[in-house]
Amino acid sequence: MLVVMQAHASDEQVRAVCDRIESLGLKPHPIPGSTRTAIGVTGNKGAIDLGVLESMPGVVECIPVSKPYKLVSRDVKEEDTIVRIPTPLGEVAFGGQSVGMVAGPCAVESLDQSLAIAERIAAAGVKLFRGGAYKPRTSPYSFQGLGEPGLQVLAKVRERFGLGIITEAVDNESLDLVEQYADVIQIGARNMQNFSLLKRAGRAKKPVLLKRGMSATLDEFLMAAEYIMAEGNYNVILCERGVRTFSDFTRNTLDLSVIPAVKKRSHLPIVVDPSHGTGRRHKVLPLSRAGIAAGADGLLVEVHHQPDRALSDGMQSILPDEFDQLVAEVRQIAAVLHRVLN
Amino acid sequence: MLVVMQAHASDEQVRAVCDRIESLGLKPHPIPGSTRTAIGVTGNKGAIDLGVLESMPGVVECIPVSKPYKLVSRDVKEEDTIVRIPTPLGEVAFGGQSVGMVAGPCAVESLDQSLAIAERIAAAGVKLFRGGAYKPRTSPYSFQGLGEPGLQVLAKVRERFGLGIITEAVDNESLDLVEQYADVIQIGARNMQNFSLLKRAGRAKKPVLLKRGMSATLDEFLMAAEYIMAEGNYNVILCERGVRTFSDFTRNTLDLSVIPAVKKRSHLPIVVDPSHGTGRRHKVLPLSRAGIAAGADGLLVEVHHQPDRALSDGMQSILPDEFDQLVAEVRQIAAVLHRVLN
Amino acid sequence: MLVVMQAHASDEQVRAVCDRIESLGLKPHPIPGSTRTAIGVTGNKGAIDLGVLESMPGVVECIPVSKPYKLVSRDVKEEDTIVRIPTPLGEVAFGGQSVGMVAGPCAVESLDQSLAIAERIAAAGVKLFRGGAYKPRTSPYSFQGLGEPGLQVLAKVRERFGLGIITEAVDNESLDLVEQYADVIQIGARNMQNFSLLKRAGRAKKPVLLKRGMSATLDEFLMAAEYIMAEGNYNVILCERGVRTFSDFTRNTLDLSVIPAVKKRSHLPIVVDPSHGTGRRHKVLPLSRAGIAAGADGLLVEVHHQPDRALSDGMQSILPDEFDQLVAEVRQIAAVLHRVLN
Amino acid sequence: MLVVMQAHASDEQVRAVCDRIESLGLKPHPIPGSTRTAIGVTGNKGAIDLGVLESMPGVVECIPVSKPYKLVSRDVKEEDTIVRIPTPLGEVAFGGQSVGMVAGPCAVESLDQSLAIAERIAAAGVKLFRGGAYKPRTSPYSFQGLGEPGLQVLAKVRERFGLGIITEAVDNESLDLVEQYADVIQIGARNMQNFSLLKRAGRAKKPVLLKRGMSATLDEFLMAAEYIMAEGNYNVILCERGVRTFSDFTRNTLDLSVIPAVKKRSHLPIVVDPSHGTGRRHKVLPLSRAGIAAGADGLLVEVHHQPDRALSDGMQSILPDEFDQLVAEVRQIAAVLHRVLN
Repeated sequence: MLVVMQAHASDEQVRAVCDRIESLGLKPHPIPGSTRTAIGVTGNKGAIDLGVLESMPGVVECIPVSKPYKLVSRDVKEEDTIVRIPTPLGEVAFGGQSVGMVAGPCAVESLDQSLAIAERIAAAGVKLFRGGAYKPRTSPYSFQGLGEPGLQVLAKVRERFGLGIITEAVDNESLDLVEQYADVIQIGARNMQNFSLLKRAGRAKKPVLLKRGMSATLDEFLMAAEYIMAEGNYNVILCERGVRTFSDFTRNTLDLSVIPAVKKRSHLPIVVDPSHGTGRRHKVLPLSRAGIAAGADGLLVEVHHQPDRALSDGMQSILPDEFDQLVAEVRQIAAVLHRVLN
Repeated sequence: MLVVMQAHASDEQVRAVCDRIESLGLKPHPIPGSTRTAIGVTGNKGAIDLGVLESMPGVVECIPVSKPYKLVSRDVKEEDTIVRIPTPLGEVAFGGQSVGMVAGPCAVESLDQSLAIAERIAAAGVKLFRGGAYKPRTSPYSFQGLGEPGLQVLAKVRERFGLGIITEAVDNESLDLVEQYADVIQIGARNMQNFSLLKRAGRAKKPVLLKRGMSATLDEFLMAAEYIMAEGNYNVILCERGVRTFSDFTRNTLDLSVIPAVKKRSHLPIVVDPSHGTGRRHKVLPLSRAGIAAGADGLLVEVHHQPDRALSDGMQSILPDEFDQLVAEVRQIAAVLHRVLN
Repeated sequence: MLVVMQAHASDEQVRAVCDRIESLGLKPHPIPGSTRTAIGVTGNKGAIDLGVLESMPGVVECIPVSKPYKLVSRDVKEEDTIVRIPTPLGEVAFGGQSVGMVAGPCAVESLDQSLAIAERIAAAGVKLFRGGAYKPRTSPYSFQGLGEPGLQVLAKVRERFGLGIITEAVDNESLDLVEQYADVIQIGARNMQNFSLLKRAGRAKKPVLLKRGMSATLDEFLMAAEYIMAEGNYNVILCERGVRTFSDFTRNTLDLSVIPAVKKRSHLPIVVDPSHGTGRRHKVLPLSRAGIAAGADGLLVEVHHQPDRALSDGMQSILPDEFDQLVAEVRQIAAVLHRVLN
Repeated sequence: MLVVMQAHASDEQVRAVCDRIESLGLKPHPIPGSTRTAIGVTGNKGAIDLGVLESMPGVVECIPVSKPYKLVSRDVKEEDTIVRIPTPLGEVAFGGQSVGMVAGPCAVESLDQSLAIAERIAAAGVKLFRGGAYKPRTSPYSFQGLGEPGLQVLAKVRERFGLGIITEAVDNESLDLVEQYADVIQIGARNMQNFSLLKRAGRAKKPVLLKRGMSATLDEFLMAAEYIMAEGNYNVILCERGVRTFSDFTRNTLDLSVIPAVKKRSHLPIVVDPSHGTGRRHKVLPLSRAGIAAGADGLLVEVHHQPDRALSDGMQSILPDEFDQLVAEVRQIAAVLHRVLN
């Protein structure tokens, strides 16, 4: 923490702040400058909120210096974490030289729908299938997902095509079931700071895919992962899915710079969801290519064989033929970065 | 829904879109313009997602027209809803000519702390006390609240001073307890789209104070209230607490224009939280006055007798003496609008 | 400037950064912490950009500490600046105990229109008239203002009713003319970082009303004022007119917290434009009251006697009768803060 | 334009709105729906602002349907515009199958600096050099550029290495000079809505590179290009350089989705500036690759041989060796899209 004093702060004011810091068991380091004094603070283990110093006379502002995350940080683990998902078709890895691919419909609508799409996903050489059985929807009157029968559909997709399953949990009850049926538990953007759910996911035995909240800063995103890891689950895959900005021609603004930013601070893998990230079918291919080119460790793509009949998010789902093209292009771009799609 | 065609869309393309609309059981109304054709769509009861028309040849965009909310809407109920909270000290009303006041610490830290603050709140003529027993914190290593013992402290505050209690629930388990102990159940900003929790709150017998999410649009905010009302709980108080923007001198940007915007669309009362809304002590008074001047139905203010020892949010808590001044000023401004503080 | 090192930065890396700082003629102050070292830097007069240290091995980030502004700062001048505008009807002051009022149409459309509106403005007891002769419009095909004939209309308004004139300049040529005709030169939001225009305004002999840019941070806003003051013109009135955010129910998001934030850092007066700040007629009264309640030193309000025939911004103009009500309400709220409307 | 009525709007209110539309010389098309009536409006050539209908009794909102731009639109010109820049080293094309490359320092600092960097740029096979002689800086105390002597340095770079020159104009005076010295005139983000400057650029005989404003919507961006084209200059290259959001780990948020969005609406080429778009050296390579993968028609990259001695933006400048790697990687990614770097 650095405490910045006003230019005309008196010596007494500087001293009072230093005394206050010491009374909290910490050590002040006054740095007199040409126009003002700043006071460095050391010894804080994170438990003390120093923001209150900001209201002392003569103080301009308090600037936090240490980052609050630990387990997610490269300070703790320098090499990249590679999250490996075993599936009947073989292992899929996210991180290192491996770029993982996940595809499927936004929502599980029926057995027929899921099988029809899964067949094309598997045919494209992809090993992980996504599809929501629990759907967080803005309106209570929209389709809310099939619930456990939807999970049973996913189990049949797994059985028939050997695809591993990623599906979302929205509360502790659904997480109990998702943990049984799925290979990866997804936590959605709206629940990124549902700390009760994060703690439960941290006690699960399956890897977790954690989506960035719609207005999450990088620190908040990493701290959400820290909640999961602090409970003992180290298999966390981060997912950028667009953030909310003034920009009005996409549903969200896909913030691809977060990829090198995460890689600088954390060892965890990060994937991109270009479907929610743009909300428009014709932007999914360009932004999928861009995500991999920016260094993402994978993609999460919505595919539907009949998007104009989809019960949710049909606008952003691509057709199986478009998905084939996507896989082909992305594979070539991964190769430019000496990486392999799997 | 309005479907806008490209300027050079062919007659066939317009006809294909109309056919598609009819095949969905809806009625198309083509409106030929000087440069392009638009197609109005009627008959949609909300179940069909027409966004997919956007990918048909010749279509530029689909513009939703009907608002998706029902029970929260002034279309359904024209007069203002007044939410009345009975407390041992007497009823507090939010809405109509009544401006309700709530104050207390960010978190319940101990019985002594809560009683010391509550004494000053009651002395200021306020009848509702706030204080968190369950605290959603960005870091898993920050103080997470006392849990049920914190609720027991609040029960003692109620008993000793006659103050009604507002406190936050963060999951279904804590909501069960909060419903027993509190007079009003608070749903925090981070849980505004925790739909599982909203449904549970909708089945509660106590009024609900619903905070706006950090990046919630007005529609999303009202739809979250709709989730609660759709389960049968009509006593909902909305709360503006600041949104996330690029603006960097406050913790959040308090969006006071939401007050007249809500009042135009909905009959529900809306209050302002200037403490989270600004995150800085010296901004709490000015923005409290501004909130009431803008037409808010109440305030939710953080007060602490020792803010520099607070376990959370000390930076934004005001002192009891400042709170006395706040009540006095706000009372006068309410009077300018012919309203009464209670 | 504070340079934060990585937790595992080596002593060599810390020393290399210190050496680099010294080679730039500055003084490094290493502060060893429990988990990492930070290095304070003193002696920088603002000319050296230290951001580049961020790319040295072992460095996490560089945090600027000193604020770059000087003349606008309370560090330089502690007491409030009161900008006084002489008009034929008497002086109008912005700042201190005085709340200044400005009203008029968005654009000067004709002599008849301007006189009709001015008559009502003057009758409401207001002494400053606004109206644009040069209109920055998003589309080249929209009404661009009358130009110099518009300024001549304003001169007649001044002559007939004794009202002082505030009008916008959009480039050096129009500023030359505005300086002749007007009492206050307005710089619009789109030109807040048109530094060439700011410098020209700094050499003008008339006070300047500077609007905040649509996405200006507080530092950028104050630095724009610094450009004007650095050229010798100290009569600057700041104006909050809403910023661009995701929030979609208003044209802009009025950021009233900027008022206490400016007052903490700067001695300059700040007024609010609730018309552009909300973009909707029914929000102008509530947000005008809120602005004054938050401590603004004045208002800039769009009034039109026939808003549905206005050539620009009719949606956000209020009627003269509504303006009378606004003045009455705002006067009472100013009184609560012991201030006087003029 | 579509006018949406309230659910309980009376027939009289609907009729009054229709009458008002007719009195403006336009044609109303009422569309009665199951819950409410909407009224389509045709015949508007853009001159009439219908927003005012929003304040009539019974009206909920007015939704604009026609886009206001013309010359920039694909409605007017379906095929891609290819902007071709002749340089002594040969032509550089932006658009179609051609991806154009521009590189150089943020600011022209001296002849030696510019020649040293230009030598490396030319050696990398690039034909266009960028460097600012007029620098818009947030602070009046920061380096403001060399002015015309800087343009003379650029002329020497052109002469010595055969590189074409792109440099920024900040007002009408500097544009006169830039037009003489440069091959492409740059309009910066802060001046995107400096309409006086846009009109002057529209009368210039050289192509214009127009940067997106920091908070410009897509419509505003395209309308700024329309200002230039409306004056007769059709050689406009758009440039995405990051927008301002809450996201705090980059200087700006690079909004790559704008590329497919522009390509859907406009025939103009669009390039990406990853240097300003991220503000951090280690993000320039990943986001350059991402920009080309997303379909951009070129890149504008800041390169400096001694970034830690740069007078501006050293933090975001890459070294010549990194630039060589960038060119190699980007060339391969362009090839995946069947495009050629030039």
